[in-house]
Parts: sequence; structure tokens; C-alpha cells
Amino acid sequence: MIPNSPIRASRIAGDLDALAAITEPGRPWTRRAFTPKFLEGRAWLTETMKGFGAEVGIDPSGNLVATIKGRRPELGTIMVGSHSDTVPDGGRYDGIAGVVAGLEIARALKDNQIELDHTLEVVDFLAEEVSIFGVSCIGSRGMSGTRPAEWLERATPEKTLSEGLVEVGGRPEQDGRRTDIRAFVELHIEQGPILENEGLDVSSVLTISGITRIEIVVEGRADHAGTTPMTMRQDALGAAARVVLAVEAIAGELAAGPAHFAATVGEFDMLPNAANVVPAHVRLLIDARAQEPSHMTRFLAELEQRLALIGEETSAKILAPKVISNNPATPCDPDIVAAFDAAARQLGLSHRHMASGAGHDTAWMTRITKAAMVFVPCRGGRSHSPDESSTPEEIALGTAVLYEAILNLDKSLQEQA
Amino acid sequence: MIPNSPIRASRIAGDLDALAAITEPGRPWTRRAFTPKFLEGRAWLTETMKGFGAEVGIDPSGNLVATIKGRRPELGTIMVGSHSDTVPDGGRYDGIAGVVAGLEIARALKDNQIELDHTLEVVDFLAEEVSIFGVSCIGSRGMSGTRPAEWLERATPEKTLSEGLVEVGGRPEQDGRRTDIRAFVELHIEQGPILENEGLDVSSVLTISGITRIEIVVEGRADHAGTTPMTMRQDALGAAARVVLAVEAIAGELAAGPAHFAATVGEFDMLPNAANVVPAHVRLLIDARAQEPSHMTRFLAELEQRLALIGEETSAKILAPKVISNNPATPCDPDIVAAFDAAARQLGLSHRHMASGAGHDTAWMTRITKAAMVFVPCRGGRSHSPDESSTPEEIALGTAVLYEAILNLDKSLQEQA
Repeated sequence: MIPNSPIRASRIAGDLDALAAITEPGRPWTRRAFTPKFLEGRAWLTETMKGFGAEVGIDPSGNLVATIKGRRPELGTIMVGSHSDTVPDGGRYDGIAGVVAGLEIARALKDNQIELDHTLEVVDFLAEEVSIFGVSCIGSRGMSGTRPAEWLERATPEKTLSEGLVEVGGRPEQDGRRTDIRAFVELHIEQGPILENEGLDVSSVLTISGITRIEIVVEGRADHAGTTPMTMRQDALGAAARVVLAVEAIAGELAAGPAHFAATVGEFDMLPNAANVVPAHVRLLIDARAQEPSHMTRFLAELEQRLALIGEETSAKILAPKVISNNPATPCDPDIVAAFDAAARQLGLSHRHMASGAGHDTAWMTRITKAAMVFVPCRGGRSHSPDESSTPEEIALGTAVLYEAILNLDKSLQEQA
Repeated sequence: MIPNSPIRASRIAGDLDALAAITEPGRPWTRRAFTPKFLEGRAWLTETMKGFGAEVGIDPSGNLVATIKGRRPELGTIMVGSHSDTVPDGGRYDGIAGVVAGLEIARALKDNQIELDHTLEVVDFLAEEVSIFGVSCIGSRGMSGTRPAEWLERATPEKTLSEGLVEVGGRPEQDGRRTDIRAFVELHIEQGPILENEGLDVSSVLTISGITRIEIVVEGRADHAGTTPMTMRQDALGAAARVVLAVEAIAGELAAGPAHFAATVGEFDMLPNAANVVPAHVRLLIDARAQEPSHMTRFLAELEQRLALIGEETSAKILAPKVISNNPATPCDPDIVAAFDAAARQLGLSHRHMASGAGHDTAWMTRITKAAMVFVPCRGGRSHSPDESSTPEEIALGTAVLYEAILNLDKSLQEQA
């Protein structure tokens, strides 16, 4: 029981368990978008949504949407939700917690016979995680009109994304940017260790960090490891190791300030990767995240400087870094953040602000509406892993914040309009 | 024409071209042991050997041997040769040059109607390169009685090594250590850049470096690359990069002296190797080569010290290094080296001594007889690559050294005995 809130952790626990049971056998918790298990999960969601009296359907972009008509539907829609698809072997809470929060909010409104002025929609976005088509946030990009047209032609050996959308009930020929949404709110596990370490209940998210992916290729020469003197080598690995440490050093400095910054060499591939051959080729992929856009600029500039120095220090050749993708930082809506903060205070919860280091559907929803997120704690910051863990009680506290904020927004949006 | 030598570069060129033509189509120069192309190469060698009047056959260990009986066969055998098998996509000269040197020496003796007191054998060792059975020097280990018994059970999906030996004409049930060989000499391309850089004709090999392979595993933690603060990570790659630089630094110091030393991180495998996940696991394989056994001991001791420091500096865990294989340095026979040096002087060739960084059949032959090698230059030190290159003239100079040394050994071995 949360004092002064109709949100029930026990119902949230039931929903989480029901969805967790729908997993690829022997691979907890795997329910990837476009798979039969994913559709089974959505069938369960559909029944649950109908249980609180919503109209349920798949929108043109493949999102599952429960609609509870408002008293004044002409005001537009307040939307709450997240995604029910998972990464392979992970994701008991990532996305799921936010969908379940939406279900619980709708149930709590019904229990209390509260009708909103705005229409309320609970959404399960399609394929927030990187899908079998190699791309992510397919549903929220569809709904926000930001899904590149060429994505429809992306294909697995079995089908195109266009065909995949039709299979899950979407109508790609009809979809496009929604204009009726007035606010979008999403609850998510933090996927980081900060709330747990600080012993706090919830965090409002101020910004969803920008994500820049940078590819660096180092070219050396494949010489005999036994016979080539140390001074005559062009060892791609030696240069690449220096690049790794440079990334770590620059990121460490930028991360020392209050704004979130992280950079990771997540992919590292070496050729020929043979015991007795000097490494000839290394490809590194850097994933850099910045709350402050200026930090990303600084990171890239300092990286270039360091690469030049490494190029002088070693005999391998470092090719110019290539920016593979560059999604800028996305601020959340300050009015909704204020509504979250007010709700947390009202409920007596300990709270803070932070940037999200991960990308979320919310980032795309900011393109078409006021949008913001609430984070709840998770164990050890673990995510995208079978170890991912958060409690129904923790999720319930975040859900209560969303519930109060939605009641508040239902009024304040009208005043603003 | 080499002054005062019957060795002919033109005949060597013809042999090299004939063997190079026997290659997997479109993959110059590939003639891996146990394949049909390998047997085709051996059929050509057999005809060529018969051409200079030798008895030709396959010995129990699968080696192709041309025997030219000596005037006093009871003195035993002087053997010359190398291997005709290649690595995939490489090996126009590696091994082949030494087999062709043996052919040319036999031809030159015949031309000059010289009969040795010792029996002369020209050998093509089976599978010096890492074979389809995952092991190398199969023939020289068989002949020297050092082939582990369990190797016969090694298998590809198609056959065991025992069956492979029978297919190439070997008789594994009969093979074992030969006791009649009094000297073994091998010509080989240097596979390194030293002779070319110094503009020298030949080098006697003093030692075949020891090869130690060391596996190091770094365990970190797979956290979300976006959300995990830089200070809370256990990044296996950061620690592994420091290990790479430590190996480079220690090897650089040891290599600064006159004795050959080299260490290479040739294999580097990272998990999960996903753009948005902090690296959780890196496995490195170090290939270290030392002319001086004490240098290998120092390398391992300093490596352990550095690993302990890196373990303190980073939050990832470096498991204890594991020595996967450890073949000690093998000195070549000083009498044969002296015979090579005398021959080089007599022929007016510029020469030096060096250690071999690569392993060779000679290393196994030292177990049963006096043995030594001569190196000839190759372009840029390139080897195990389609770019591998040496000229017939360069190989002819080294062959002339072997020829003179064999004439000398035919006498001096009798004096010693």
C-alpha cells in the first residue's frame, strides 16, 4: 500500500509474472518483437486491457493501444506506456515495467471511477529493442512520423519489415505522425546503479542522452609473429589498445562533471586473429552518450587529437573516425518533469533528477508532444541481462508518480491551452 | 652463375615455378598437406627425384625421401630438405625453397659425378605447417620419435591422422626415431626483414627460438553502455588494452639486446562485443619467442608483475596467465654452423648469424642428429602471405652454401667419428 495512492504493487507483481511466463523456453526472458511469443504477450495484454473497459487495437505503426475515451475527447490524448518486447535473454523489466505501469494506472482510475477529460491511451510500442530487422523504436518512430521510409524494405531472410508490420496487425500504408497527443509519460527501470546507490525512490528524467556511434579502423601489417623484429612491426592491436585507453581517459574527464557522459568501446574486431601473425586490422566501435551536446563535440574533438598523437607514436595507420550514427540529446518536457516532482513530493517519495544514458521511445515521442520519463531503481544497474531486477514495490512508487502526474496534466494542459 | 659453384639459379627457378603451378585454383599458393594438390606436388617431386637417379619412397612417418646411396653407407646419412606443404594462400617459398635446394644439390652432385661417402637423402617433410589435423611438423616429429602417440587419434570430420598418414603412403605402425642420420641441413627463407635490410646474402641460424603461448583472460561485467557511470564499470577491454601495452613494453625491452625476442598478442576475442554493452570478457593469446631461455623466464615474471599492477589499477579481474604450450629454444649444431660459415667465406658471400623466430623441422631433427639451417633473404620479411617473395638467385646462394657444407661434412663427420 502506498499512502494516498490507489496504485497496488500486488497487481503490478501479477502482471510482471504473467508476462515473464511468456518467454522462449529455457531463455528467460526472451520475447522479441515479431516472434510468436511476442504476439502471445500481446494477446495477454489485449485481454488485460479489455478487462478495464478499454477499446484495444493495433495502430497503423504496429503499436498495441488501449483507448479510454475522455469526457472531452476533443482535448486530445494523454498517453502512457512503454514496450513489451525484450532483448534476447534479458528484459524481465526493461519496457515491461512501463507497460504494466500503464495497465495499473488504467485499473486505478477505473477503481476510483475517475474519468479524465482527455482521452487516455495505454501503449505497448512495437520493437523498442533492436529487432530482427536490425533497427529499434519501430513503433514510436512510426507514431511520430520519424521512421525512415526505406526501413520498410529492410528484410530478414523470411520477410520485409513492411510484411512484419502487417503480420503484427499494422497498416504501414496508413501510418504517420499523430497530432492529437498532448502528453506522453513513460516509466522505466533506471538500467543504471544511481538510484539504488543513493537509496532514492524515483528520478525524473531531464534529458535522454544523445547517442553517437563512431567507427575507428586501424590498419597494420600482417607479419610473422616469430620473425619480425619488434621495431619493424606495424601492429594494429598496439595502436588500437592506445585508442581504447584514450576513449576511456577522455570519457572519464567528461563524466567527472554533473552532466551524464559515457563512452564505451563495445565492439572490437581484429584480423587475422591468428596466434602467430602480427595483427593487421582492428575495427573499434565507440558508443558515446552525452546529456550536454557540447560534451559530445568536445569528445569528438579530443578524440581526433589523441588519434593523431597515437598515429605519430605507433607505426600502424589510424583511419579517420567515421560517425556511423548521431542522435542528439533530447530534453524532456519541463512541465511534465515539474508534475512528476510535485507528485513525488506529495507522495512523500525521495527523488532526484538525472539524464537517461539509454535511448527510449520517449525520445521519439518528444517530436510530437510534451513527453517525459520516470526512472525506478533496479539491482546493481544490471539490464539487458537475465539478472535484471526491480521489485513490484519500486515500480509501484514510480507508477504512483505517473498516476498523480496524469491527473495533474489532465487539468494543467487545459489551462495551458 | 655462382663463381666456384655448380648450383644453378635457373634450375631452381624452374622447380619453384613448377611447384607454384600446383596450387588450389584461384588461391595462390595453396598446397596443404593431405590434400589432392599436395599429393600432386609430391608426384612432381618424385619424378624430379627419380630424374637424378635417386631411390624415392615414402617413409613410415609420411615423409617423401629420395635416397642416393653413399660409397660407405655404413657411415650413415646426411639429410637435406624442408617441406612442400603450404599455409592457405601463402607459401610460394616457405619450405619449398628448402626442398628445391635439396633437389639442386643432388643434381649438382650428379652433374659433377661426385659420390659422397655418406648416403644422401633429400627429404620433403610431411605437414610442417599447421595441418587440417590442427598440428604441425608431423613428419619431422615422426622421424625424430617425438610425435605424441595421441596425435594419431586427432581427426577431421573425414578421417583420423592415422588414416591420413596411410593415405599419403605412411605406415604409422612402423614409424619411430631414426638413428642412422649423422647431419641434417635445411635452407629456408628468413621470413623476416633482417637480411634484406642489411643487404646480406645468407645467415647461419644459431638457435631456433623457443615458442611459449600464454593465454590471459580478463573478466569484467556486462553493463549497459549508456547508463552505467564511467566510475562504476568493470570494463574488460580497458584492462585488456593495458595488458596489450604491457606485453609490447616488456617485449620491446627484451628485444633491445642482441638476442632475438618477440612477443605478439595474436588472438584477441571480446564478449559480448555489442555496441551498447560494456565489454565483459576478453581472451588474449600471447605468442612469445626467445633465443635466450632466460629471456622467456624474465618475460613471464615481468608479465605477472604488470598484470598485478593492472589488476590494482582497473576494476576488471585478470585471471592468472595460463601457459598453453612451451617449446624451449633449440640451439643448432655448432660444427654445421662452422661449416656454413666456412662455405660462405669460400664463396665470397656476405653473411651473418641470427636466431630463427619461427619454428622449423630442424628443431625436431636436433633431437636425433647434428642439425642446422641457412636463411636466405625475402622481400620485406613477408611470409605466410601471397606476397611472400625471394629470388632464385638468392635461394641459389644459400643452396651453394649448403652444397659446400655437405661436401665438407661428408669428410669432417668421418674425422669426428
